[in-house]
Amino acid sequence: MAGSSLGIIYRITTWGESHGAGLGVVVDGCPAGLPLSENDIQLYLDRRKPGQSRITTPRKEADAVEILSGVFEGKTTGAPISLLVRNTSQRSGDYSEIAASYRPGHADYTFDQKYGFRDYRGGGRSSGRETIGRVAAGAIAAKVLLEFGIKLSAYTRSIGPISIDPDRFDQTAIAETPTCMPDRDASALAEKYLSDCMSRYDSSGGVIECVIDGVPAGLGDPVFEKLDANLAKALMSIGAVKAVEIGDGVEVSTRNGSTNNDPFRIEDGKIVKASNHAGGILGGISDGSRIVLRAHVKPTPSIFSPQDTVNRDGEEIRISIKGRHDPVIVPRAVVVVESMAAITLLDALLVNASAKMDHLKLIYKN
Amino acid sequence: MAGSSLGIIYRITTWGESHGAGLGVVVDGCPAGLPLSENDIQLYLDRRKPGQSRITTPRKEADAVEILSGVFEGKTTGAPISLLVRNTSQRSGDYSEIAASYRPGHADYTFDQKYGFRDYRGGGRSSGRETIGRVAAGAIAAKVLLEFGIKLSAYTRSIGPISIDPDRFDQTAIAETPTCMPDRDASALAEKYLSDCMSRYDSSGGVIECVIDGVPAGLGDPVFEKLDANLAKALMSIGAVKAVEIGDGVEVSTRNGSTNNDPFRIEDGKIVKASNHAGGILGGISDGSRIVLRAHVKPTPSIFSPQDTVNRDGEEIRISIKGRHDPVIVPRAVVVVESMAAITLLDALLVNASAKMDHLKLIYKN
Amino acid sequence: MAGSSLGIIYRITTWGESHGAGLGVVVDGCPAGLPLSENDIQLYLDRRKPGQSRITTPRKEADAVEILSGVFEGKTTGAPISLLVRNTSQRSGDYSEIAASYRPGHADYTFDQKYGFRDYRGGGRSSGRETIGRVAAGAIAAKVLLEFGIKLSAYTRSIGPISIDPDRFDQTAIAETPTCMPDRDASALAEKYLSDCMSRYDSSGGVIECVIDGVPAGLGDPVFEKLDANLAKALMSIGAVKAVEIGDGVEVSTRNGSTNNDPFRIEDGKIVKASNHAGGILGGISDGSRIVLRAHVKPTPSIFSPQDTVNRDGEEIRISIKGRHDPVIVPRAVVVVESMAAITLLDALLVNASAKMDHLKLIYKN
Amino acid sequence: MAGSSLGIIYRITTWGESHGAGLGVVVDGCPAGLPLSENDIQLYLDRRKPGQSRITTPRKEADAVEILSGVFEGKTTGAPISLLVRNTSQRSGDYSEIAASYRPGHADYTFDQKYGFRDYRGGGRSSGRETIGRVAAGAIAAKVLLEFGIKLSAYTRSIGPISIDPDRFDQTAIAETPTCMPDRDASALAEKYLSDCMSRYDSSGGVIECVIDGVPAGLGDPVFEKLDANLAKALMSIGAVKAVEIGDGVEVSTRNGSTNNDPFRIEDGKIVKASNHAGGILGGISDGSRIVLRAHVKPTPSIFSPQDTVNRDGEEIRISIKGRHDPVIVPRAVVVVESMAAITLLDALLVNASAKMDHLKLIYKN
Repeated sequence: MAGSSLGIIYRITTWGESHGAGLGVVVDGCPAGLPLSENDIQLYLDRRKPGQSRITTPRKEADAVEILSGVFEGKTTGAPISLLVRNTSQRSGDYSEIAASYRPGHADYTFDQKYGFRDYRGGGRSSGRETIGRVAAGAIAAKVLLEFGIKLSAYTRSIGPISIDPDRFDQTAIAETPTCMPDRDASALAEKYLSDCMSRYDSSGGVIECVIDGVPAGLGDPVFEKLDANLAKALMSIGAVKAVEIGDGVEVSTRNGSTNNDPFRIEDGKIVKASNHAGGILGGISDGSRIVLRAHVKPTPSIFSPQDTVNRDGEEIRISIKGRHDPVIVPRAVVVVESMAAITLLDALLVNASAKMDHLKLIYKN
Repeated sequence: MAGSSLGIIYRITTWGESHGAGLGVVVDGCPAGLPLSENDIQLYLDRRKPGQSRITTPRKEADAVEILSGVFEGKTTGAPISLLVRNTSQRSGDYSEIAASYRPGHADYTFDQKYGFRDYRGGGRSSGRETIGRVAAGAIAAKVLLEFGIKLSAYTRSIGPISIDPDRFDQTAIAETPTCMPDRDASALAEKYLSDCMSRYDSSGGVIECVIDGVPAGLGDPVFEKLDANLAKALMSIGAVKAVEIGDGVEVSTRNGSTNNDPFRIEDGKIVKASNHAGGILGGISDGSRIVLRAHVKPTPSIFSPQDTVNRDGEEIRISIKGRHDPVIVPRAVVVVESMAAITLLDALLVNASAKMDHLKLIYKN
Repeated sequence: MAGSSLGIIYRITTWGESHGAGLGVVVDGCPAGLPLSENDIQLYLDRRKPGQSRITTPRKEADAVEILSGVFEGKTTGAPISLLVRNTSQRSGDYSEIAASYRPGHADYTFDQKYGFRDYRGGGRSSGRETIGRVAAGAIAAKVLLEFGIKLSAYTRSIGPISIDPDRFDQTAIAETPTCMPDRDASALAEKYLSDCMSRYDSSGGVIECVIDGVPAGLGDPVFEKLDANLAKALMSIGAVKAVEIGDGVEVSTRNGSTNNDPFRIEDGKIVKASNHAGGILGGISDGSRIVLRAHVKPTPSIFSPQDTVNRDGEEIRISIKGRHDPVIVPRAVVVVESMAAITLLDALLVNASAKMDHLKLIYKN
Repeated sequence: MAGSSLGIIYRITTWGESHGAGLGVVVDGCPAGLPLSENDIQLYLDRRKPGQSRITTPRKEADAVEILSGVFEGKTTGAPISLLVRNTSQRSGDYSEIAASYRPGHADYTFDQKYGFRDYRGGGRSSGRETIGRVAAGAIAAKVLLEFGIKLSAYTRSIGPISIDPDRFDQTAIAETPTCMPDRDASALAEKYLSDCMSRYDSSGGVIECVIDGVPAGLGDPVFEKLDANLAKALMSIGAVKAVEIGDGVEVSTRNGSTNNDPFRIEDGKIVKASNHAGGILGGISDGSRIVLRAHVKPTPSIFSPQDTVNRDGEEIRISIKGRHDPVIVPRAVVVVESMAAITLLDALLVNASAKMDHLKLIYKN
């Protein structure tokens, strides 16, 4: 099925496998007239690169992007933007074990059940490298949004038991810590915790938070195309994400209405909310406050400890996964979460352009 | 924007407002040859009816469904199934206050911002009555799934601080308790807690869980049409849901890989998982285990306590919401969650029919 | 499959069978703030009503439309507009023959092959009554377009061998002749021709033309969402249409470039075309000239002359079709063609709202 | 807008400009398990290559395709298939004239109106090279269809006034004549006619016909996803096509029902039609007969004769188009028509897999 596309007006289609010729994305529906260069996209891709610290895989992947279409004289033309990243560092390697056995926590078994066989090299289509197309498309979306004053920022909120302290929030630390935490103390603790996990041949989960500022009220559509519904889909579609929260998320289930409702008030002559438990979305439509999202990420399933499993022939076996694997997915997935949020928000902004006669009259004056 | 539709092959389109002529849904893409009567649908609609106990609104709504098309001689024909529920008990009432002011926690403000004005009667399109179309479509989806041995069961997992005890799980209690809890003791405690909320003119949140058994491995598509991504969207699109979990959900973020991975093993000659932290989905594709979902529901925003807010003219005011409102949304939303899960799963089952050449050869033998 | 919907932003979903409870459409994505009443829609539906002259079936169908949702205080709200037309005059009748046999030129056989059985009463879903939903949705689309100075006019161009004479073009005749021809002399001849057909228990084909004025340049999208491609689909989806032409259509295949190209020139300071062989569309995008479309309609397949065919049991039989049937489909299909063109054009106008940064900056000024 | 994609289950997304880095397509939803190599696709691409005879442009384009993803060990995996053709022979050239002026019959003016500017090099996105992605995707679709005994054949039916004689139909001539006509005599005459056009610095239109054999009854969906409606869109979306016919097409408008209806009869115990005026489709659903399509193609708009037009600055000018241009588009578009028909038909075949409970029970036996 055609499951590799997302979005209605800003529609992206990703393709590629971990060890194939390359990976990429076609971005269709980007408005014409946006200044865009390969560097705009490369900056985002570099944020998901491995080999940047002790807690990410020491693999070196250049992941250099090439714009194949849709940009002319430095601006988007309205035509589809095709982006290509060649695979370069993939070792041919010995995949006989992974080819025949089902790694716990991976999609080996389900791909075989669905399709009858699978491209097992490095996880094939279900590899984390699949996110390259998402991030490249997210970089463009974020650039469009910035033209309208909308800024996204994702970061690591927790790794295992170590959470950031909101009182120590430091925006600059996100880019400067290997954990992508906006809290240098928590980051140091998390690094220590991860070292400990690695020494036990184990891995850790964590939480990624994304905040979006400058969003005008009115984005998102009622019922099935609610902004929060589409954000939930976008984040849950990232491999390893097992829960998504909007605003106060799981905490609302133990709350009372009197404390969970956000009162409206007037500030500088404008309607604002006095609190933001809702996370910037009411009835599926942005309310002008900061949008707040969280994705809960499971521990890296590839661990070096021996594990029980079965092979294709239906025999119980015991495997030890080899190779290079991050002890935690979270830091490299931060930019993926930010990208998915940007893609979703931009699509909502574009479809909202035709929501009311007043908008149309601005464009099609007679 | 055309946001009132969901699904690719099994595609539903809902319509209707709280106080308009009626509400309904067009179900397009239901396979031909399914026995179907109005009673099949009415049974589901009755589960979301108000007026059934002290903890739901005393409004009486008949909500009788009429099949307008798509069924002939007791079977679906492949043509779209149009379902209509006339509004009958809506009082014309006095809406002057709600028309002019923005209720905290409601979509009044965001609808006005998006569209310039709104149908304010009873919440209009953002009323809980909008779910009538979802439940009617869900009843049909569940009936198709049952033909393939797939069974869904949703229930209340918690209300405020009161959670069910898995050791006391009692399937029959779901239909027999006013809370829809599968634990009569917890239900009694929850009723007491809700009485307490009501006496304080307040409301409560809660958690709905849905389990799905009998799902064959292979449903769902990689990348953006992952089964869990679509389930997250489906559940988050229900008004008042602020978080969605798959399997162990938020707990995975504090886990290690060694305890979170589900080992495969052989049972009765078949490949099964020894545990199910993943909640039945790996890489976005069903793995043959029970699928487990949870939706976190915020407290009913309509509370009788006075609240600060503003009106359309930008003046700060204080309002007290009148009328008939459930102190908790959860029990009536249980069947909505089950319906959305059924709709999503059926669509995945239908699109998977063309996933591999082997499937097609079963149908198009030469 | 979900084949009952059309459009991306202005998305319509029709439902209903000839002899079921009724027929209708859900119009999703209509911009908010359009004044709309049932009368606006009824005017269009009345144009496709039978029983208006000797050359249409003497059946009387009230076909009164009810707006069930999406309109509040006389204006569209942005919510889906559900429209219902109850079936009233359908006779239960004796369908034993039609139930068992396959009428030549009808979809009886193909529905049975596809779905295993069919609602045979009056043609079921493949009846001409299916177009009620299209026309209702077209009436709304045409009303939106009119707000931007865009006007559609469809009419009968020919019936059998009788064609209109462009030199006698009379706009008022379209509504006043039973043939919907803009030429009273041709209409009289066509009526005579049809009387002749009827006396021979036979039927006739014809051609419907639709012109659209006031379309701004820039509507339609390159490659697959070309304006002409979508118009072709929209018109070919009308039962009995077997060919679609844009501009000079089939004539271009015998032309040379030197005579087929439309030179540009300046008129009143604006760029215009000196001729319009292209029919107002270049590269799939409107060029500001009049858009010209033609649909070729086959003769009514229901004729009273005896015909050879087979029945469900695979026996060769001879049938004579009874009942009330128009000797030509064209006059009643004129408003259907106009409606499908309006629906397609409006969708192109809405999606074009987000085509370039300049448009977006008009809406989302910071 | 996201207009570069087509199809529901077999969904293709094309990208690329005439003089950019390359062109390509992402094919999503191809069933897993199809044997596929680059050679399968190259054979189709070679059929649209220029430089093959006197009547096509003498440009040499290698147009070598690379499969970047979705194929493993010689078989499709169910993952998106990304195909890339690098541009190699494009001269940088001098585009100052074409950049500033609007060529008659081209999309220069409409692109500028829609997007504010355009990639003018070689026509950019509206170049005939855009069809490379269509043909690559069509080659794969045709290969899947062949596995079910479905064969497509497109050919030139006429060029200018020269038509093939059905009595001289010679299948082998299609690949062996420079005109792609299945009639060597007509082809010789057409070549002579084209030489004549070229000597007058002019161009010619023509007609492409496509027949499809072996299609099972039941493909296509009622109302908007009719097989003929989607074929019409697919063909009309090809640049230069101005009319599309199904079966007897435009001729039906002057027919009577008694001669246009196709009687059913029994042959070898099977239901067949005694004639095929309908072109293999009844009510939008394939009826088991040969499907017959025709596309009317306008003369190449690029002619060497001087033409009147205007430039971007709104000045009337006179231009003479230089460069290398085919005097007729038809022969190279034959494989494009065949490809678009294959893509459309395969999608209908895939979506039909879930049309009835009986199909599903073959796949999901309990």
